[in-house]
Amino acid sequence: MADYQAFRVELKDKIAHVQINRPEKRNAMNSAFWTEIIEIFTWADRTDDVRVVVLSGAGEHFSSGIDLNLLAQAAALVGKDVGRSADALRRKILELQASFNAVDRCRKPVLAAIQGYCLGGAIDLVSACDMRYASRDAKFAIKEIDMGMAADVGTLQRLPRIIGDGIMRELAFTGRMVESEEAQRIGLVNRVYDDKDSLLAGVMQLAADIAAKSPIAIRGTKEMIRYMRDHRVDDGLEYIATWNAAMLQSADLRIAMAAHMSKQAPEFAD
Amino acid sequence: MADYQAFRVELKDKIAHVQINRPEKRNAMNSAFWTEIIEIFTWADRTDDVRVVVLSGAGEHFSSGIDLNLLAQAAALVGKDVGRSADALRRKILELQASFNAVDRCRKPVLAAIQGYCLGGAIDLVSACDMRYASRDAKFAIKEIDMGMAADVGTLQRLPRIIGDGIMRELAFTGRMVESEEAQRIGLVNRVYDDKDSLLAGVMQLAADIAAKSPIAIRGTKEMIRYMRDHRVDDGLEYIATWNAAMLQSADLRIAMAAHMSKQAPEFAD
Amino acid sequence: MADYQAFRVELKDKIAHVQINRPEKRNAMNSAFWTEIIEIFTWADRTDDVRVVVLSGAGEHFSSGIDLNLLAQAAALVGKDVGRSADALRRKILELQASFNAVDRCRKPVLAAIQGYCLGGAIDLVSACDMRYASRDAKFAIKEIDMGMAADVGTLQRLPRIIGDGIMRELAFTGRMVESEEAQRIGLVNRVYDDKDSLLAGVMQLAADIAAKSPIAIRGTKEMIRYMRDHRVDDGLEYIATWNAAMLQSADLRIAMAAHMSKQAPEFAD
Amino acid sequence: MADYQAFRVELKDKIAHVQINRPEKRNAMNSAFWTEIIEIFTWADRTDDVRVVVLSGAGEHFSSGIDLNLLAQAAALVGKDVGRSADALRRKILELQASFNAVDRCRKPVLAAIQGYCLGGAIDLVSACDMRYASRDAKFAIKEIDMGMAADVGTLQRLPRIIGDGIMRELAFTGRMVESEEAQRIGLVNRVYDDKDSLLAGVMQLAADIAAKSPIAIRGTKEMIRYMRDHRVDDGLEYIATWNAAMLQSADLRIAMAAHMSKQAPEFAD
Amino acid sequence: MADYQAFRVELKDKIAHVQINRPEKRNAMNSAFWTEIIEIFTWADRTDDVRVVVLSGAGEHFSSGIDLNLLAQAAALVGKDVGRSADALRRKILELQASFNAVDRCRKPVLAAIQGYCLGGAIDLVSACDMRYASRDAKFAIKEIDMGMAADVGTLQRLPRIIGDGIMRELAFTGRMVESEEAQRIGLVNRVYDDKDSLLAGVMQLAADIAAKSPIAIRGTKEMIRYMRDHRVDDGLEYIATWNAAMLQSADLRIAMAAHMSKQAPEFAD
Amino acid sequence: MADYQAFRVELKDKIAHVQINRPEKRNAMNSAFWTEIIEIFTWADRTDDVRVVVLSGAGEHFSSGIDLNLLAQAAALVGKDVGRSADALRRKILELQASFNAVDRCRKPVLAAIQGYCLGGAIDLVSACDMRYASRDAKFAIKEIDMGMAADVGTLQRLPRIIGDGIMRELAFTGRMVESEEAQRIGLVNRVYDDKDSLLAGVMQLAADIAAKSPIAIRGTKEMIRYMRDHRVDDGLEYIATWNAAMLQSADLRIAMAAHMSKQAPEFAD
Repeated sequence: MADYQAFRVELKDKIAHVQINRPEKRNAMNSAFWTEIIEIFTWADRTDDVRVVVLSGAGEHFSSGIDLNLLAQAAALVGKDVGRSADALRRKILELQASFNAVDRCRKPVLAAIQGYCLGGAIDLVSACDMRYASRDAKFAIKEIDMGMAADVGTLQRLPRIIGDGIMRELAFTGRMVESEEAQRIGLVNRVYDDKDSLLAGVMQLAADIAAKSPIAIRGTKEMIRYMRDHRVDDGLEYIATWNAAMLQSADLRIAMAAHMSKQAPEFAD
Repeated sequence: MADYQAFRVELKDKIAHVQINRPEKRNAMNSAFWTEIIEIFTWADRTDDVRVVVLSGAGEHFSSGIDLNLLAQAAALVGKDVGRSADALRRKILELQASFNAVDRCRKPVLAAIQGYCLGGAIDLVSACDMRYASRDAKFAIKEIDMGMAADVGTLQRLPRIIGDGIMRELAFTGRMVESEEAQRIGLVNRVYDDKDSLLAGVMQLAADIAAKSPIAIRGTKEMIRYMRDHRVDDGLEYIATWNAAMLQSADLRIAMAAHMSKQAPEFAD
Repeated sequence: MADYQAFRVELKDKIAHVQINRPEKRNAMNSAFWTEIIEIFTWADRTDDVRVVVLSGAGEHFSSGIDLNLLAQAAALVGKDVGRSADALRRKILELQASFNAVDRCRKPVLAAIQGYCLGGAIDLVSACDMRYASRDAKFAIKEIDMGMAADVGTLQRLPRIIGDGIMRELAFTGRMVESEEAQRIGLVNRVYDDKDSLLAGVMQLAADIAAKSPIAIRGTKEMIRYMRDHRVDDGLEYIATWNAAMLQSADLRIAMAAHMSKQAPEFAD
Repeated sequence: MADYQAFRVELKDKIAHVQINRPEKRNAMNSAFWTEIIEIFTWADRTDDVRVVVLSGAGEHFSSGIDLNLLAQAAALVGKDVGRSADALRRKILELQASFNAVDRCRKPVLAAIQGYCLGGAIDLVSACDMRYASRDAKFAIKEIDMGMAADVGTLQRLPRIIGDGIMRELAFTGRMVESEEAQRIGLVNRVYDDKDSLLAGVMQLAADIAAKSPIAIRGTKEMIRYMRDHRVDDGLEYIATWNAAMLQSADLRIAMAAHMSKQAPEFAD
Repeated sequence: MADYQAFRVELKDKIAHVQINRPEKRNAMNSAFWTEIIEIFTWADRTDDVRVVVLSGAGEHFSSGIDLNLLAQAAALVGKDVGRSADALRRKILELQASFNAVDRCRKPVLAAIQGYCLGGAIDLVSACDMRYASRDAKFAIKEIDMGMAADVGTLQRLPRIIGDGIMRELAFTGRMVESEEAQRIGLVNRVYDDKDSLLAGVMQLAADIAAKSPIAIRGTKEMIRYMRDHRVDDGLEYIATWNAAMLQSADLRIAMAAHMSKQAPEFAD
Repeated sequence: MADYQAFRVELKDKIAHVQINRPEKRNAMNSAFWTEIIEIFTWADRTDDVRVVVLSGAGEHFSSGIDLNLLAQAAALVGKDVGRSADALRRKILELQASFNAVDRCRKPVLAAIQGYCLGGAIDLVSACDMRYASRDAKFAIKEIDMGMAADVGTLQRLPRIIGDGIMRELAFTGRMVESEEAQRIGLVNRVYDDKDSLLAGVMQLAADIAAKSPIAIRGTKEMIRYMRDHRVDDGLEYIATWNAAMLQSADLRIAMAAHMSKQAPEFAD
C-alpha cells in the first residue's frame, strides 16, 4: 500500500481501515486529502481483497472540515473576468466533488466512525458513506453557512436523503451544533457508543460481519440502494432483475445454501 | 370467493382479510402463494365491495419468506448458455416481482398485521403494503444477504422510501434481526401491540375506520401518495388537479358536507 | 406595507412576521386569504430587507383550514357539461395551488409557528414552509378525507418528503388527530414549546439567527434543498457547482472569513 | 396455434405473421381484437421459435381504427355519479392501452406493413411497433380529433418520439390525411413500396434478415432502444453495461466471430 | 380588447390574430413587448371564445429579435457585488422566460406565420409555438452566439425537441442563416408558402380548420403533446387515462358521433 | 503535445485536429486508441487555446470500428464463476464507455469528418461528437448486431437522440449499410461533400467560424444542448438562468456588442 500524507490506510481481514491522519490539525482537509482520497477509494473499489471500508479520524476529532488555506487557494481562482472566473470555479468545485463521489461510488460498504468534531466538509464526507456511527462526544455542524456559502461538495445533495426534510433545513440554515444523541434520533448516525474505543471496536465488528457475507451479494445490495436514491421503483425493479440475471448464476448462492443447510459459516471467494 | 392453497380470504363489512395460511411451514411462500396473491389482489382491486385489505399470517409467524424449494426451482433455470439462462432468470424475477406489484398497485389500502418472524421475502411483501403494524414479538430481517443474493422482489426498491437511508443499508448489509420496538422507531411499523390478538383487533379497527370513508377519496389519496414516491412535486400537483377535476364532481363531497353539518356519520356508495 | 383582510404583516429586524388574522373564524382560509398570501410572499421574496419569514396564526389556533364557503363556491363551478366543468375545476385547483407554491418558492426561509388546530388546508400550507415548530397544545389532522376528497393543494404532494411513508398513509387515510409530541417524533415539527408565547419567542430567536447569516448563502442553501426534493444527486451536484460559480465571487465569503478570524459577528449586505 | 376471431396468425421460418383479419369491416378493431392481440403478442414474446413479428391487415386496408360499437360500449360506462364513472372510464382506458403495450413490450422486433387506410386507433397501434413500411396507396390520419376526443391509446404518447414535434401537432390538431410519400419524409414510415404485394414481400425479406441474427443480440438491442425512449444517456450506458455483463457470456459472440472469420452465415440457437 | 404598444390583436371567428406591430423597428422586442405578450396570451388562454391563436409580424419581417436597448438595461443590473448581480440577472432571465412560457402554456394551439427575418429572440419565441409556417423569403438565425452569449429564453431548451440534434448544434454554434427551404427540410417549419399573403391566408385556413374541432379535444391533445416533451411514455399513458376519465363524459363525443353519422359538420360549444 | 500511437494531434489557429492514425488497419480501435482518446480529449477540454476539435481518420476510411484483438481480450475476462465474470465484464464495458464519454463531455465543439467506412464502434464514436460531416463515399453500419451483441459503447444510447426512432431500429436490427446521401436525409450527417479533400476543407472552415466566436458563449451553448438531451424544458430554463447569471457578467458581451456596432470582427480572449 502506498504512503499517504493525509491518511493512514491498513488492510486486515478483508477490512480496509482508512484513517484521516492529521490529528494536530483536527484532520482538516488539505490539498493532499482531496487527491489521496480518490486514489484510496479507487484502490478499495478495485482490490478484490477489500470487502468493507471503515473510515475514521486519528486523534480527538473526526475532522473539522476543509482546510482554510485551501479555501484561500480557491478564492485565488477569481480573476478579472467574471465569466472566466466562474468557469474556473465551477470546474474546481466539480473537481472537489469528485473526491467524495469516489467514496459514494465505491462498490464496497463504507462505514464512518465519528468522534469529536464532524464539521462542514466532514459532513459532506460522511454523507457519502453508507453508514455513520458516533461516540457520545461527537458533534456535528453544517458550518458552510457561517463561511458565507452554500455547501457544495455533497451535504445539501446527499443529506436530505438521510435525515428528514424539516430538520435538514434547520441545520443547514442555522449551522447549529448537533450532539450525538440528537444525531441518532434524526437518523444521521445509526448508533452511539460510549467512547472512541468502543466506537471503533463496534464498527470493526460490524465491518467483520459484512466482510463475511457474499461479496457478490453485498455489491448488488449497495448498487441497488444507491440506485434507488435517484430512480423510480419500477426502474429499480427492472434494474435488479437485469443485474441478478447474471449474479444468480454465481456459485455464492449454492455456497450460502449449503452453509445454511449444514449450519456452518459459508466461505465466499473474493 | 375462490378457495386458495396458500391463503384464506374473508370479506366482511367491506374489509377483505387476506391471511397467509401455511402455519405449519411458517407461512413460507411456495409456488401457489406467488400466483394466488395476484388473483386475490386483482379481485380486491376490482371488487367494489372491498374497501380495505388486511394482510396477516396464520399461526405464530407472519412469514419466514420464500420457500427454499422454490429457490431451487429458479436455480434449475440455469442452463448451459449463460446468455439464455440470464434471459430466463430475468423473466422469472420479473414474474415474481409482479406478485408484489399487484399488492402495491391495489387501489384499496392494504394494512399488514405482523407477528413473529417477518423474514426475507416477507419484508419484500410488507414493503408493498400501505402500512405495517406489529405485535411485541415481531422480528424482521432482510435475510437475502445470507442466501448470497441481493433482494430482488421489492425490499431494496421500496423500503428505502419507508425507513431512513443509513439504517436501511445496515439492515440490508448485515441481515440482522430487528425487534418490534426498533421497527417502530425507524418507521418500519406504525405501532406495536402487546400481542397477536390485540394486534389483529387494532388493525381491524383501523381498517373499519378507513372503510367508512368515501371510497373515491381513499382511492385518490392512495394514488397520489403512490405517485409521489416516484414523481416531482410539480408533477404531483398537476396530476391531482387533473384527477380531482373529475372526482370533485362526485356525490361524495355533498354527502360528506351534509354529514359534517348534521354531525352524523356519512354513508358512501361503493 | 399594504393592509390585508386575512393577514397582519410586520417587518422588523429583517424578519417578516406574517400572521393569519381571522381569529374569530379560527383563521379559516377565505377568499381573501388565497389571493393575499401570493401578494405577501411575492413581496417577501422581492424585498431585500426581508431575510426570513415567520408564519403564525392569531388567536388560539393556527388555522382550521379552508373556509367552507369557499368550497361551496368551487362546487358552483360544476355545470351541465362534465368535460367543461372538469376544465374549470382543474384550473381552479391549479389556482389554489399557486397560493402555496408562492410560499414554497419564496427564496427566504419560512418558519411556521403552530398552536392549537392545524387542520386540512393548514397542513397543506405548513408543508410548503421550510420548518415547522409547535406549542404543546397543537393538533394536526389531514381533514380532507372527511370532506370526501383527496387533498389537492399540497399535503399529499409535499408531506411525503417530510414524514415517513408508512405514517403518512395512516394519517391521510384516517384523518386522525396528531398531538404535538407525536408530530415531533415523526418529523412533522422540529421542536415543541410549552405554550404559545414561548413558541413565538423561540421561533423569533431562530429567525434572528438565520437573518444574521449571509443572505447569498441562505438563498443558495434553500434553493439546493428545494432542488434535491425532486432531482438526482448528480444533477444536484452539477447545479450547485454552476450556482456557486457566481456566488463564491460575492463579498460575503471574505466578510465571513474575516469575522471568523477576528471572532466578531459578520455583517452582510442585504 | 389458437384460432382467433379478429386475427390470422402464422409462424414460418421464425417469423410470426400476425394479420388483422376483418377485411369486410376494414379491419376495424372490435372487442375480440383488443383481447386477442394481448394473447398473440404474449405468445410471440414467450415462444423462442418466434424471432420477428410482421403485423399486417387483410384486404385493401390496414385498419380503419376502433370499431364504433366498441366506443358506444365505453360510453355506456358513464353512469349517474361523475366520480364513479370517471373511475370506470379510467380503468377501461388503461385496459385498452394494455393491448398495445403488449405490442410495445414484445421482446421481438415488430414490423408493420401498411396498405390503404391506417386511421385513428390504427396509428396508435403502429406507433407501438418497431418499424413501419407502407405501400404507395397508404393513407394515415389521427382521426380521434374528429371524434371529439384526445387520442388515448398511444398515438399522442409514442408518435412524438417518432416524427418531428411541429408536424406531430399539425396532424393531431387537424386530423388531416397523410399520403405515403409524406409519411416517409416525416419519418412515420421507413420505406414506401409500389403496391401491397411488393410491400409484404419487402417486409418479409427484412424480417428474414433480422430472424437470421443472434436472438440474444436482437433482444438486447430492442430493449436498449425502448429504454432510451424514456431514460437518460448515462442511465442507458449503465443499463447496457449491466445487461451485457451477462449476455456477452453467451455463445452467440463466438458463433458470430467464427462465422465472420470463415465468411459463412452464422447459425444461432433460439 | 386592450390597446397594446407592441402588438395588434384581433379576434374573429374564434381565431385570435396576434401581430407584433413595430414594423419600423423590424418588430424588435422592446420592453412593452415582453410584458404585453403575457397579458395577451393569458387573455387568449382564459377567453373561451378564442380557440386558436395565429402569431405574425407586421411589415416585411417577423422579428429581428430582442431590442438592443433592452439588453443594455439588463447589463445595467450588473453591480459591484458579483453574487448579488448574479441573483438579479438570474431573476431577470427567469422573468423574460416567463413571457414565452405564457405562449408555451396557452391551452389553445398557437400557429406562427413567419416572413423575412426571424432572428435571435424570435427563434426563442417561435420555438414556444405549436407550429411554424413560413414564406419563401423567410430567414432564420440563432443570433445569440454573435452577441457573445448562450440563448437563454427558450431556443436551446425547446428547439432540440423540434429539429434534429446534429443540425441544432451547427445552427447554435455558427449562428448561420437558414433559408425557408432548409427550414422545412429540417422540421423547423411545416410548410413554405410563396409569399407573405399566401402564407397568412394558408395559416388562417389551418386555424379555421382547428377552430371547428371540439375545444375539449384540442385542449387535451395539446396538453398531452406538451406533456410528452418531458415525460415517459408510461406516465403519459396514465396521465391521458386520468384526463379522459373526465373529458370523455363531455357532450362533444356525442356531438361528433352524431355529425359523423349524419355526414354534417359538428358544432361544439366553446 | 504528446506523441500517440493511435492518433496524430495538431493544434493550429485554435483548432485541435485529432486524427485516428492507423490507416493500414482501417483505423481499427486498438488498446492504445481507447486510452489515448481520453488523454487527448481531457487535454482539449482543459487547454484554453483549443476552441474547437475536428476528429478525422487518416487514409481511406474513418474507422472500421473496434479491433477484433481487443474483443478477444474482453472475452478472456470470462472466467469460471458467472457472477464474478459479469462483474469484470461490466466494469470493462464501463471503462470503454468512459473513452467516448470524454468526447461527449468535452466542453469544446467536436466536429467529425467522415470518409469511407464508419462501422460499429466508429458509429458509437461519432454519436458522441457534436456534428458529423461526410464525403460522398462514406458508408455507415451498426455492425455490432453481426458480432452477436447489442452495441454498448454509445450507439444505442446516443444515436436515438440524433436520428428518427423508426429508422434507428431498422439500422440497429439489420446492420445494413447506409450511404452518405441517406445519412444526410435521416440527420446522421449534416452535409455531404464531394470527396475527402473538400470534406476536410469544409469542416475546417466551419471549425474556424466557430473558433472565432466567444468561447464563453460556445461553452454555454454546448452545455445547454447536452443538458436538454436528458432533462425537462423547465429544468433547462432554470439551469440556463443560473448559468448565465455568471456568464453575462463576462466581458464578451460588451466585446460582441462593440464589434456589432462598429461592423468589425470581435476578438475574444481564450
